[in-house]
Amino acid sequence: MISGEDSLISRYFKPLATDPGAFGLTDDAAVLNALGGDIVVTTDAIVEGVHFLADDPPDTVARKALRVNLSDLAAKGAEPAGFVLTLALREADDAWLTLFARGLGSDAGLFGCPLLGGDTVSTAGPLMISVTAFGRVPPGKMVHRSGAKPGDRVVVTGTIGDAALGLDILKSGVVAATLADDTAATAMLVGRYRVPQPRNALAQAVRDHASAAMDVSDGLAGDLAKLCAASGVSAVIDAPGIPLSAPAASLVARGSVGIERIVSGGDDYEILCAIAENRFEAFAQDADRAKVAVTSIGTVIAGASAPKFLDAQGSEIPLPRLSYSHF
Amino acid sequence: MISGEDSLISRYFKPLATDPGAFGLTDDAAVLNALGGDIVVTTDAIVEGVHFLADDPPDTVARKALRVNLSDLAAKGAEPAGFVLTLALREADDAWLTLFARGLGSDAGLFGCPLLGGDTVSTAGPLMISVTAFGRVPPGKMVHRSGAKPGDRVVVTGTIGDAALGLDILKSGVVAATLADDTAATAMLVGRYRVPQPRNALAQAVRDHASAAMDVSDGLAGDLAKLCAASGVSAVIDAPGIPLSAPAASLVARGSVGIERIVSGGDDYEILCAIAENRFEAFAQDADRAKVAVTSIGTVIAGASAPKFLDAQGSEIPLPRLSYSHF
Repeated sequence: MISGEDSLISRYFKPLATDPGAFGLTDDAAVLNALGGDIVVTTDAIVEGVHFLADDPPDTVARKALRVNLSDLAAKGAEPAGFVLTLALREADDAWLTLFARGLGSDAGLFGCPLLGGDTVSTAGPLMISVTAFGRVPPGKMVHRSGAKPGDRVVVTGTIGDAALGLDILKSGVVAATLADDTAATAMLVGRYRVPQPRNALAQAVRDHASAAMDVSDGLAGDLAKLCAASGVSAVIDAPGIPLSAPAASLVARGSVGIERIVSGGDDYEILCAIAENRFEAFAQDADRAKVAVTSIGTVIAGASAPKFLDAQGSEIPLPRLSYSHF
Repeated sequence: MISGEDSLISRYFKPLATDPGAFGLTDDAAVLNALGGDIVVTTDAIVEGVHFLADDPPDTVARKALRVNLSDLAAKGAEPAGFVLTLALREADDAWLTLFARGLGSDAGLFGCPLLGGDTVSTAGPLMISVTAFGRVPPGKMVHRSGAKPGDRVVVTGTIGDAALGLDILKSGVVAATLADDTAATAMLVGRYRVPQPRNALAQAVRDHASAAMDVSDGLAGDLAKLCAASGVSAVIDAPGIPLSAPAASLVARGSVGIERIVSGGDDYEILCAIAENRFEAFAQDADRAKVAVTSIGTVIAGASAPKFLDAQGSEIPLPRLSYSHF
């Protein structure tokens, strides 16, 4: 006899358990080989109605659940080694699970991060997907939040703010109205909310050059404040230098969206790091080879105050809210 | 500025992050050192209304969340190395969190399994606690579900069925009525449901002697069927030889509860293992030294049929349901 739960695991998730240490999901635990290095462990959950919306496509929900964790591994300079999954579902809906498993398997393959195990439970509440992901680094080489030094450049990958604008569109906010006729921009921003682009290609460059790093998940302003606090420093950011996508830049230029929403919106899943001035050129070259855009947006300074975001005139931009918080 | 979430983590959970690899929960990831062995990874979630009840004491909820995972590590022959926690809460209730963190910290210390990291999210639904726990074994030494051989003894630790009876009491079922005047028995059975006793003291003996092992979490009958299926064998169990606590034995003797409820009830968190006949004496001696009761309840046989549970007359006991399933 196979219970519904076992059948669900065997049907949808066993094909994703490609690592020998997963034992085809037929055991109670997996084995992870450190291959002589350190295992980096990170865990992030996404909840329906908070990190994804009830009518988001199941494959993008799965990909977001994995990618928010891959983004942490990238920022820590770690190479993906595998993940475990806890899935809290209201019901075992075959159509939903088929698409969910397809999205998850596709990204597990793309990022070389196989499923090692998991647990499936029933809930009467919102869906929740909790992923614990593992990476490998050479011994002692995990990149920390602490370590940024005055004089370091503050660097971000990709573009900032797109995902928050995408969420605004899905919630029929001001961005949706402003971009009503621009289907390409709308699709791009919504895509950035639903499917983050973790910068795992940059992991080695971060490991080789960054004095401190983290991923931007709750908002650039808040996450930079955390990195500075952990490092015992402050920072000054040139807000007009923050890299924006064309739709985001257009919305800011038209005054539809303020820069404070861009820097506190969250869900960016870009890497934020501090790079010593004499390392920056080598880092930029490695990033170029990894095909990841990196932009220097400011400077680490001594001090304990919150990082300042300056406008084109050098005036500090007031930030009523630094980032998203669940409580 | 510290967000509500950061403050919650720092107030309640930072004191539990005693391992240097947890970096005081001030980073995005933890580092786990395999110490030259394999890392064993297991993940189990508990959900309000399913694995614990809304009015269960918060400290027992925390302890159950950790212990169901510790039980998996024990059954795999692994020594605890640490865990990460995902906590989905409706609100940040100080009184609840204080007791929850106290229970968690107490068990983390007792079992030598420190908190390495986690994520806290808000939910409108039932509380959910997902734990991913890590253990260490010498390379290649994790004990599997597969490996049981015809002729092996089927062995369980502790007593079976108490937790299911405890849940019946909490749900005001037939056991509650039968035991109404016996407060000691009631408290013992409820305690077994709320706070499992994982057999981590037996991990090395399992590693040294068991040909196959798993923990009994969903019901002895169903879990034994899984172990047999993974090993390509069957088994015959002497049902009257299944170890029962005094209250459970009394309920069965009086006919208040059938043995089929005892063996399919779930939440036992005892170890089920197969031990070769010529290993059993050494295993029993090691178990005695570890102060864990072990009982031989049957024999592994060749075949592919579901394990049979025989009564005192040697007749097969019909089992309408082997174990708990979420779907």
